[in-house]
Amino acid sequence: MPNILVTNDDGINAPGIAALVDVAKQFGDVTVVAPDSPQSGQGHAITLKNPLRLKKVSVFTDIESYQCDGTPADCVKLAKYVIFKDKPIDLCISGINHGSNASLNIIYSGTMSAAMEASIDGIPSVGFSLDDFAYTADFSASKLVAEQIIKGMLANTVTTGNLINVNIPKLPYSQIKGIRVCTQGDGRWEENFQEGTDPHGGKYYWLTGEFHLNNHDPQSDIIALREGYVSVVPSWHDLTNQKALNSYKFLES
Amino acid sequence: MPNILVTNDDGINAPGIAALVDVAKQFGDVTVVAPDSPQSGQGHAITLKNPLRLKKVSVFTDIESYQCDGTPADCVKLAKYVIFKDKPIDLCISGINHGSNASLNIIYSGTMSAAMEASIDGIPSVGFSLDDFAYTADFSASKLVAEQIIKGMLANTVTTGNLINVNIPKLPYSQIKGIRVCTQGDGRWEENFQEGTDPHGGKYYWLTGEFHLNNHDPQSDIIALREGYVSVVPSWHDLTNQKALNSYKFLES
Repeated sequence: MPNILVTNDDGINAPGIAALVDVAKQFGDVTVVAPDSPQSGQGHAITLKNPLRLKKVSVFTDIESYQCDGTPADCVKLAKYVIFKDKPIDLCISGINHGSNASLNIIYSGTMSAAMEASIDGIPSVGFSLDDFAYTADFSASKLVAEQIIKGMLANTVTTGNLINVNIPKLPYSQIKGIRVCTQGDGRWEENFQEGTDPHGGKYYWLTGEFHLNNHDPQSDIIALREGYVSVVPSWHDLTNQKALNSYKFLES
Repeated sequence: MPNILVTNDDGINAPGIAALVDVAKQFGDVTVVAPDSPQSGQGHAITLKNPLRLKKVSVFTDIESYQCDGTPADCVKLAKYVIFKDKPIDLCISGINHGSNASLNIIYSGTMSAAMEASIDGIPSVGFSLDDFAYTADFSASKLVAEQIIKGMLANTVTTGNLINVNIPKLPYSQIKGIRVCTQGDGRWEENFQEGTDPHGGKYYWLTGEFHLNNHDPQSDIIALREGYVSVVPSWHDLTNQKALNSYKFLES
């Protein structure tokens, strides 16, 4: 039985992680290490200034589970070096996130950072996200998709890359057209801070915004989602812009 | 005079940002928007659940400055959409970080996330880091390096890519061999959590670790630093692992 680590960024009590645990337990020995509170937008934050607490909990029936007061990346570091000290992690799955992590959203995503944190050590890792922010989102189609992906990941040895960003459209399973391997869509957020005054007279700015696509590349994850496909983007932690290497030669000395 | 946004992740009172402001003011109209407290390891975290506060402060003589209670990425979002609402940002510089952000450290780095947040909107952006974690680090050589880089960035139009990760070795200026354009070094952290018991009897884990290089690629930033060069890595926010696109075709349906 493969050892499967399940984590997320919406917190251990979110419906999305319950859905993922439910699927994963068919395929292996599942251990959950997840944040004790919602951590959306935490990106790849890690906790350096403060100690971390790890608490064994009984959130899922017959599943060894721990909650941690740190970030999603902290959870995976603790899983790798404390919980899985003496046994390998054969697969790390993160999610199912309430909300899309396609395109640029990957850089802000705790879900994907958790998966990336495992992949850095060579662990096959998947971040799953459903394109629906609602707490009460319907994960039934996502569970069937996750089943296919987890089955595929456990059956196939991948020699190049071990991290994928999976986004699932908000559709009934019968209307999902299939799974497509994609590139990260080129988009950006146009922020629109909500300005206000708090009860004590202090001015505040509250982050909100609208996502815009820079182009409609048919190979991109965003377009796949819009066309009713599940998008799979092979991703990694090397941020070198290879195409730009020659552009900065003028700085050399 | 170009408009230059200066930010960092060590907080507006860190010596590193004072060094950077000191250099930048020779070249343009400087505005500082930086966190009100240290934010190391914040990665690309953004604040969604809480409002942000922006306070005009007098930290630097004759320089318009604001401190923000959010993350480095929050600071740049507020700069772009609130402070620079009616004027362009011609250059965003972040740092000078107390500590290296070479290799894998870019993904945990608030310094680089701040610069990346600006670059997403097409703003030429530079993250500067000195390979010395000390609060009392000597920034005199780094200031001369920053001067060269800022001068170069303002004088040259780059058509591909607009974000660079600059790391400076801990050496006197006379011993720095030059500036080298590099790729992101392939490395990882081997964690070694310090376990302890707090004054209330609670068990804790405190993150610490050692950095290991996976190889000694001579084109990498880490090797450049070790050889006494300043490393410049053109970076970006597209995390697609292009080489792995074909590896996952088995998932398609």
